[in-house]
Amino acid sequence: MTKDEDLPFDPKMLDKMARVCIKFGLNLQHGQDLIITSTVESLPLVRRISEEAYKAGAGVVTTILSDEELSLAKYRYGSEESFDKAPDWIFNGMAEAFGNNTARLAISGDNPMLLSGQNPEVVSRVGKAMSIASKPAMEKITNFETNWNIVSYPGSKWAKQVFPELSEDDAVRKLAEVIFSASRIDGENPLEDLNIHHEQLKKRQEWLNEYSFKSLHYNAPGTDLMIGLADGHAWKGGASMAKNGIICSPNIPTEEVFTTPHAYRVDGIVKATKPLVHRGTLIDGIEVRFEKGEIVEAKATEGEEVFLQLLDTDSGSRRLGEVALVPHSSPISQSGILFYNTLYDENAACHIALGQCYSKCFREEITANPKAIEASGGNSSMIHVDWMIGCDELDIDGITSDGTIVPVFRNGEWANEI
Amino acid sequence: MTKDEDLPFDPKMLDKMARVCIKFGLNLQHGQDLIITSTVESLPLVRRISEEAYKAGAGVVTTILSDEELSLAKYRYGSEESFDKAPDWIFNGMAEAFGNNTARLAISGDNPMLLSGQNPEVVSRVGKAMSIASKPAMEKITNFETNWNIVSYPGSKWAKQVFPELSEDDAVRKLAEVIFSASRIDGENPLEDLNIHHEQLKKRQEWLNEYSFKSLHYNAPGTDLMIGLADGHAWKGGASMAKNGIICSPNIPTEEVFTTPHAYRVDGIVKATKPLVHRGTLIDGIEVRFEKGEIVEAKATEGEEVFLQLLDTDSGSRRLGEVALVPHSSPISQSGILFYNTLYDENAACHIALGQCYSKCFREEITANPKAIEASGGNSSMIHVDWMIGCDELDIDGITSDGTIVPVFRNGEWANEI
Repeated sequence: MTKDEDLPFDPKMLDKMARVCIKFGLNLQHGQDLIITSTVESLPLVRRISEEAYKAGAGVVTTILSDEELSLAKYRYGSEESFDKAPDWIFNGMAEAFGNNTARLAISGDNPMLLSGQNPEVVSRVGKAMSIASKPAMEKITNFETNWNIVSYPGSKWAKQVFPELSEDDAVRKLAEVIFSASRIDGENPLEDLNIHHEQLKKRQEWLNEYSFKSLHYNAPGTDLMIGLADGHAWKGGASMAKNGIICSPNIPTEEVFTTPHAYRVDGIVKATKPLVHRGTLIDGIEVRFEKGEIVEAKATEGEEVFLQLLDTDSGSRRLGEVALVPHSSPISQSGILFYNTLYDENAACHIALGQCYSKCFREEITANPKAIEASGGNSSMIHVDWMIGCDELDIDGITSDGTIVPVFRNGEWANEI
Repeated sequence: MTKDEDLPFDPKMLDKMARVCIKFGLNLQHGQDLIITSTVESLPLVRRISEEAYKAGAGVVTTILSDEELSLAKYRYGSEESFDKAPDWIFNGMAEAFGNNTARLAISGDNPMLLSGQNPEVVSRVGKAMSIASKPAMEKITNFETNWNIVSYPGSKWAKQVFPELSEDDAVRKLAEVIFSASRIDGENPLEDLNIHHEQLKKRQEWLNEYSFKSLHYNAPGTDLMIGLADGHAWKGGASMAKNGIICSPNIPTEEVFTTPHAYRVDGIVKATKPLVHRGTLIDGIEVRFEKGEIVEAKATEGEEVFLQLLDTDSGSRRLGEVALVPHSSPISQSGILFYNTLYDENAACHIALGQCYSKCFREEITANPKAIEASGGNSSMIHVDWMIGCDELDIDGITSDGTIVPVFRNGEWANEI
């Protein structure tokens, strides 16, 4: 299905998506290079994005294409030693490119269950080797050194996972509709619609930054969690400026405002409200207990082994790196669909992330200084895994430095109009 | 056509091709990494090669996939500045990997006329930028620092170019047959057949190395050319040992024995006997005159502009880097097909190459020493472009250091039985 005429949806929507990627998501500048990562199946979108990039004056557009069967070859036939090896050279090269003002675009449309039939220990080892190898490149992105963007493409395996009852063509058509609608590109003027939406996110962000809460207290069935926020944290959402000076909107769609929790000030219990798909394994029924920022007890009703291995990745993988607020009324949440895809599921619910923090989620005097980030409570890890804890019964209180309690969320919605 | 069931030929032949690639072409060692470059269309072969590589104990197999439409985007929409830029980071990374014992496999199945509709000046600029960027990686290959291999896949555009009168499916089926037969993988035991053939090439190579001719004198209609050979040159052919100690067979198919001419000792006229396809442009009717190793007059009846630009690439692009002997009776020549693909056409006829010499085509004391190579007459350039001069009227004499004349070719065939 890499030819336009074989697509079960209107290919013109991909033209809109490509323009939004380049003009709004990346805000690609004349002369900037671009690295795209994508599956082969997403070529109808990648080709359009590549053309839009050159029309916008791109220097070099380089696409790294992946293929499911190629990815599986190592799991099926690899030697023991191969599981702990990864192609460092390509990630080191990407890191070098990102450091030289190259923009980064990821197209997410993979089969979320690709690795579900593989040995979890092997999946974990291969994943860890990839995390270590990709760290130099990933850090440039988490440190927001360059403008980047991630969008989705309705891959057929993904579509069938989300809509198992439909035929492949119908599933792809349905997923495409949801993606285009959630990404707000289905109107007459997508760029205008996205600007209006991002203005709203900006207002929420400003309201939260004004209060500068010391901590957030989460209450819901199975959840009683106090999340201390990092000293000097800043809330972000929608568009923001990368360190190369370019304002970009990393996620399309996005519904969240988010900041950095304190790696050592999280206490209590929390229950996940949606399953998490990690490296092709479904992890459901997660319940954990935090003590002084660290997960000290953890269980899951499904995929527990993979979840526990994830927590043991490194010294930062049991601590939080992100806390994000998303109202239960967000369009993605209202679709009622479980997407098995972080970009979508994280925008359907309040969530927290294990692992690496975003250095951009700090005030300006801290954000450029790794030591100051650590001293302020910013967590460091090879992983960054989002994990949904929002629902229509979730209440969140903000607690200011003088102990004042301010309602932030009630019954899964913002407690105040803005 | 990336699914097995859509292929118009027997996919089992690809299993044989993949095994031959890994076991014979590359001779991939346990623990070795591998970088594959290929078009998306060749995925049915790449997937099998990737699996065979892991079965043979590969560490990491990394595939860099290209797509025609993505390649064309820059020519169609790129800015002026973009034509002189290339993704250095990926080639630098490959060079690093090849230097660390990573093997290299190229799958050639591209549309040979992809760039034929583009502005020749732009094609030349983009090509030059790519040559400069890829030089660090290409040098590791031309210096034979690691084991490498190139094989072909019957891509549909290529097949239609070779067999324009056939339907796409029939053209692919026909090209596939020719590829499998010329690659000697269509018998019961391809590895044995290839070993026998390579023994023959080895005997020719030994005969030529014993004489160690000072020069070769070519005579044919339109050709009267004296090619001085580099001091301390060595003839190669078929399998040979890369500097990482691994014996590999770079080209499948291969029919040639070849060595290094002296960059400053080539005089006379030569007429090409087949068209050359360079960067998507057909260059036909080439006639040139050499003086002291340099092309001082050049013309072509078709594609002359691109040919002249090629000659002006750098200071080494008007001098020879390779001379290769292929009998007119070689199976590829006998097929009578013009392949528009160097891997095939160069194995159909005696040829010479403009540009970079192969450092392996020297005696051992010279081969590892770039200064000794230069002093011995080895040419240096960003390009290496093969170009066919063989026909059934070609006579070649070898001239020894004491002036003895030894018949090497008569009427396009080896002059002596061995």
